[in-house]
Amino acid sequence: MTQRRAAVLVAGSWGTALATVLADNGYDVHIWSRNEEQVNEINEHHTNKRFLQEAVLPHNLKATTDMEEAITGAELVLFVATSASMREVARKASPYITESMLIIHATKGFETGTLKRMTTVLAEELKTDPTRLVVLSGPSHAEEVVRRQPTTVVVAAENMEAAEQAQDALITQSFRVYTNPDAIGVEVAGAIKNIIALGAGLTDGLGFGDNAKSALITRGLSEITRLGMAMGANPLTFSGLAGVGDLIVTCTSTLSRNWRAGSMLAKGKSLDTVLAEMGMVVEGVRTTSAAHELSQTYGVVMPITEQLYKVLFEGKEPRKAAVDLMGRGRKHEMEDIAPIQ
Amino acid sequence: MTQRRAAVLVAGSWGTALATVLADNGYDVHIWSRNEEQVNEINEHHTNKRFLQEAVLPHNLKATTDMEEAITGAELVLFVATSASMREVARKASPYITESMLIIHATKGFETGTLKRMTTVLAEELKTDPTRLVVLSGPSHAEEVVRRQPTTVVVAAENMEAAEQAQDALITQSFRVYTNPDAIGVEVAGAIKNIIALGAGLTDGLGFGDNAKSALITRGLSEITRLGMAMGANPLTFSGLAGVGDLIVTCTSTLSRNWRAGSMLAKGKSLDTVLAEMGMVVEGVRTTSAAHELSQTYGVVMPITEQLYKVLFEGKEPRKAAVDLMGRGRKHEMEDIAPIQ
Repeated sequence: MTQRRAAVLVAGSWGTALATVLADNGYDVHIWSRNEEQVNEINEHHTNKRFLQEAVLPHNLKATTDMEEAITGAELVLFVATSASMREVARKASPYITESMLIIHATKGFETGTLKRMTTVLAEELKTDPTRLVVLSGPSHAEEVVRRQPTTVVVAAENMEAAEQAQDALITQSFRVYTNPDAIGVEVAGAIKNIIALGAGLTDGLGFGDNAKSALITRGLSEITRLGMAMGANPLTFSGLAGVGDLIVTCTSTLSRNWRAGSMLAKGKSLDTVLAEMGMVVEGVRTTSAAHELSQTYGVVMPITEQLYKVLFEGKEPRKAAVDLMGRGRKHEMEDIAPIQ
Repeated sequence: MTQRRAAVLVAGSWGTALATVLADNGYDVHIWSRNEEQVNEINEHHTNKRFLQEAVLPHNLKATTDMEEAITGAELVLFVATSASMREVARKASPYITESMLIIHATKGFETGTLKRMTTVLAEELKTDPTRLVVLSGPSHAEEVVRRQPTTVVVAAENMEAAEQAQDALITQSFRVYTNPDAIGVEVAGAIKNIIALGAGLTDGLGFGDNAKSALITRGLSEITRLGMAMGANPLTFSGLAGVGDLIVTCTSTLSRNWRAGSMLAKGKSLDTVLAEMGMVVEGVRTTSAAHELSQTYGVVMPITEQLYKVLFEGKEPRKAAVDLMGRGRKHEMEDIAPIQ
């Protein structure tokens, strides 16, 4: 009997967690990594301690540094590279991808520089039907997924049959998978939510309360929705798991880097100081710059993004930014989303 | 020069906070209460300590036990009675209400027994144009509003001119007011959100993580949206301040009674024990029963509400309810909201 096979590229925390879900579902999973030490650790000790400290990985999950070995014979290939390395990983994978393989990606963010969505990058690099590219997103800490704690995600593709294949491959008793035809909306929501997390840290850092934080999240969602619509998304996707769901997880965790960066900026530190003190990448900073550029490209008014941009890159005083947001003209709640009849 | 006047009925924490906003905006405000002691405290000491411990109230906010005195000459009347007493307060106010007065209410919940919306109750009791009844809702702890911390709310009325009048009356530098034509959606969202807070306490009490809580909030929002649509609401209202916004404030505060009740139920206590130990009303319990009845009246599938109903009123084991929710058939994320084309 031939075993069903799946490939996961690469072995970060989210990739490893999703590989575990596929293994739970009976797939023989090959996870690809450049790092030989990590590959040996996964194969010999069934752990990936740098990314998932406590997890014991299933025995039907194997690692390899050989892309051909990882992909050949797989019926589905799951890309979970960083947004910065997606194109390179896809290019490396491309020779081994066949038309019949189901391609899923679970990477949040736009390509640096081009601001292309990840499905666009994959469509450019892989010889496969772009309507069958599936995006996976939703509120999902990897640590909770490997502990088999209840988690829900959405898989989206223009071609609903592809989305349903992904649903079948990934759904388990603790990992509930919903389908959605709006791949663009799911990608934009996931790519931009970090801005709001940064903003939430900023309002908390200014000493504002729950009302202000909730306002920031809700009105932030509203402007992300407007941008998504201009890019071709369905507004309702933004009230689903990839939008509201992911925002709630991101903004209510005070452990997130984005929140911490926002909170330090509120205390009057400069962006350079904050980044130096944190010593690591803060996604929300890059995302703010990307969203600011996209808002101009698509002609979408994004007042929260604009004020965050000024605080981050033009030295605007955070409290002044908050005052300017509160003092805008009178607005209709769904302006530009659902015009008044 | 004649001063603009406003009446607020009654002097609970939210009524007092909104009266403060109107006073900040230059209105002479009369707040009505049955309680003579409370009226004297407000007039003599400018405090309302039982409801807002730290607040010092503005001097242009006066209290009275005389309904005629409170309302006569007012250009706007703001009802903030409990949902249980709204009809009685409206009936008492009715003789003094004139066609020219702007009527706003800021009460969350349905009428007990009839499950009528608050605007329906007001329309039945007051001699005024029902399309001009304005609903105020959104993420707003009263304590933060009286501290003038940034807060956003939505005012909704079928007649947008009425909504805009309410916006003009209430908007200040720290209290930002958005208009929305969907009064039904704003009322349903505010009335039902407590169910989700109860459910959030339950998942936390079961030891589940952020993924599960976020899933519960997002999928709960989805079923509330479906019920709202069946009742005539616009689905997008539920991703606004009265929906997502209020849900975030309610579900992420572990101080809420609904959350606490849910968390105690998860530990295996019966509903009677929980209510006895808490010694006060838990809105989410009443709301679950109301939503369960409405879901049947309108033929809307509400799986989370149904499982909560079974836990609360039929002794179902909470962990079994969670397992049944996770094990449902495969679903499309926007099923019944935006059908697949």
